[in-house]
Amino acid sequence: MRYIDEEAIEKIALGAAVLGTGGGGDPYIGKLVAKEAIRKYGPVALISLDELEDDQLVVPVSGMGAPSVTIEKIPSEIEFTAALDKLEEVLGRKVDVVMPIEIGGINSLTPIIAAAKKGLPLLDADAMGRAFPEAQMVTFHLDGLEPSPVTMADEKGNTVVLYPSDGVWSERLARVITIEMGGSASICDYSLLGKEVKQSAIPGTLTLAEKIGGFLLDNKGKEQQGIRKMLEELKGYQLFEAKITDIEHRLVGGFTRGSAQFEGINQAQGRSFTIHFQNEHLVAKEGEHILCSTPDLIAVLDEETGFPITTERMKYGARVVVVAFPCHDKWRTKKGIETVGPNYFGYDFDYRPVEELQKERR
Amino acid sequence: MRYIDEEAIEKIALGAAVLGTGGGGDPYIGKLVAKEAIRKYGPVALISLDELEDDQLVVPVSGMGAPSVTIEKIPSEIEFTAALDKLEEVLGRKVDVVMPIEIGGINSLTPIIAAAKKGLPLLDADAMGRAFPEAQMVTFHLDGLEPSPVTMADEKGNTVVLYPSDGVWSERLARVITIEMGGSASICDYSLLGKEVKQSAIPGTLTLAEKIGGFLLDNKGKEQQGIRKMLEELKGYQLFEAKITDIEHRLVGGFTRGSAQFEGINQAQGRSFTIHFQNEHLVAKEGEHILCSTPDLIAVLDEETGFPITTERMKYGARVVVVAFPCHDKWRTKKGIETVGPNYFGYDFDYRPVEELQKERR
Repeated sequence: MRYIDEEAIEKIALGAAVLGTGGGGDPYIGKLVAKEAIRKYGPVALISLDELEDDQLVVPVSGMGAPSVTIEKIPSEIEFTAALDKLEEVLGRKVDVVMPIEIGGINSLTPIIAAAKKGLPLLDADAMGRAFPEAQMVTFHLDGLEPSPVTMADEKGNTVVLYPSDGVWSERLARVITIEMGGSASICDYSLLGKEVKQSAIPGTLTLAEKIGGFLLDNKGKEQQGIRKMLEELKGYQLFEAKITDIEHRLVGGFTRGSAQFEGINQAQGRSFTIHFQNEHLVAKEGEHILCSTPDLIAVLDEETGFPITTERMKYGARVVVVAFPCHDKWRTKKGIETVGPNYFGYDFDYRPVEELQKERR
Repeated sequence: MRYIDEEAIEKIALGAAVLGTGGGGDPYIGKLVAKEAIRKYGPVALISLDELEDDQLVVPVSGMGAPSVTIEKIPSEIEFTAALDKLEEVLGRKVDVVMPIEIGGINSLTPIIAAAKKGLPLLDADAMGRAFPEAQMVTFHLDGLEPSPVTMADEKGNTVVLYPSDGVWSERLARVITIEMGGSASICDYSLLGKEVKQSAIPGTLTLAEKIGGFLLDNKGKEQQGIRKMLEELKGYQLFEAKITDIEHRLVGGFTRGSAQFEGINQAQGRSFTIHFQNEHLVAKEGEHILCSTPDLIAVLDEETGFPITTERMKYGARVVVVAFPCHDKWRTKKGIETVGPNYFGYDFDYRPVEELQKERR
């Protein structure tokens, strides 16, 4: 057990934006609210999966919605504890531990807000090891755990409890409620016992985000030294260096969907690249050649600072380094690929691990 | 207190289709399910508002969704009791009495299904005195009563509990859930105490529907004698006799919206009429002249049988009698007109009572 302070939040926010693979919402806003919550309520205790007791009630707390809306609609601490309070009421027992459902983007920080306000410990683990756009895209779903009951809250005082028949129905019902609530909402899904979480969650991911954020912060301006350390830590690859030449995104069905075009610079001069995204980056291509695809991670980093750029912050003319990392092994199983592989998102090619794709290119 | 038998259901279904003003779903399906429920579980006790005790828990049970979907997706008794069971769980007490939320269409019958299965008495009252398309269009809303908690269920095993901040948010959240559940869902909203219901509900409307249905059934084929008796009972007006020349409806935002064109026949020969609807008929016009508008009731009846025709059953070439009735006085208050008047539905004219509009025409 250790405590998360404001410095840790700075690093987690930055590292989580890398693991957010362009989505998960801009952590800048979540960082401000999380730091404010810690100043107000005191530091948050971070516990590891090993420290979790079998019969403790563990609840993921997150924000749902399109990142481009979250920018406009700053989440408040009240929203997050409203969903948590409703869950305690529904289950008739107190929550023991909160956790992030995903380590990517703003949702790595929202449970810190809830933990601070409720005085609860935070679990150093998540259920994606990255960010994904849909609610059933969690290791808990792969392991056959039930999302029900799901509680939701908005800033207008509305709360909702869903009892979906499975993870896919949870996503469908929660998504339309989120859209109707104005495009973003706070949500607690997959409240589980400690023993279930121990078997299914991806361990140590808040610490990992903090470490990556630390590399980038400590090596800022040092000729991409931060990026190199990060690639080493995550066993990742530099895909290309490029300039953004075109960027298109629109809000469809509660998601930010679109694509970005890139023109290579430095060693990649004369080559063209594309990234497709649905909240998160899904596919990076050079012409028709796949460089990396979901569930492996794609991150777009500022060439100068090495800091990650979320899909909705990508701007024409920006000079970037695009990197890729292998996803957690749970996503490379049959059910994992069915749930988050390229076919699920409507692409007609099969998933191949980024390591394999990169080996071919050499 | 008296018992509802199969014959009463036949009559209620017919009368409720008149009061449904074209919407509320085709009661034919509800009639079949309600009769089956009574055969299976025994007759349902019908109690009047006077017989209600102040501290009894009264729960409206209804189906939500576009009528054109309800035709395809036959509701089951399981769905209705699922919403009711969830409400009992949420409130931590047993329901004492069920009631229709609206007397129009299929929703006059759905509480019979739930009452039979649960062995509960049914209240001879509703919260509209007709059918309306949206959930906040109830006398309970006019009287400042809260819809929360709202329970919903579908045939796939999903249940949802909403805690909306008011009646309008209840409609918004329940509507998107209904659409996502496939276009129709069962819902329990505005669970209230007996004393609240006594002050706010419209009394005797199931008996009224049964009476109107009786007029039509008993006088079938007797040269519109049934229609005349109905007009007398409801203090209504015959607007015109006509042939349907055009009918357009589409599913928009979970509603069946559209309009029908009519060419006058008999005394109305040479004249043209229009009816606009959103699930229910909203406005009847001759050219630009308003004949009747919401919240007053407009019903389209088969010329030969006098039986009502719902919006989704209107067919090119059908010969019809179009009639109108004054709504309950609660709808003619300032808040009533704001909630269900022509302006709410996007029309740019002010509501005038059908009695007034008809007086001018003479």
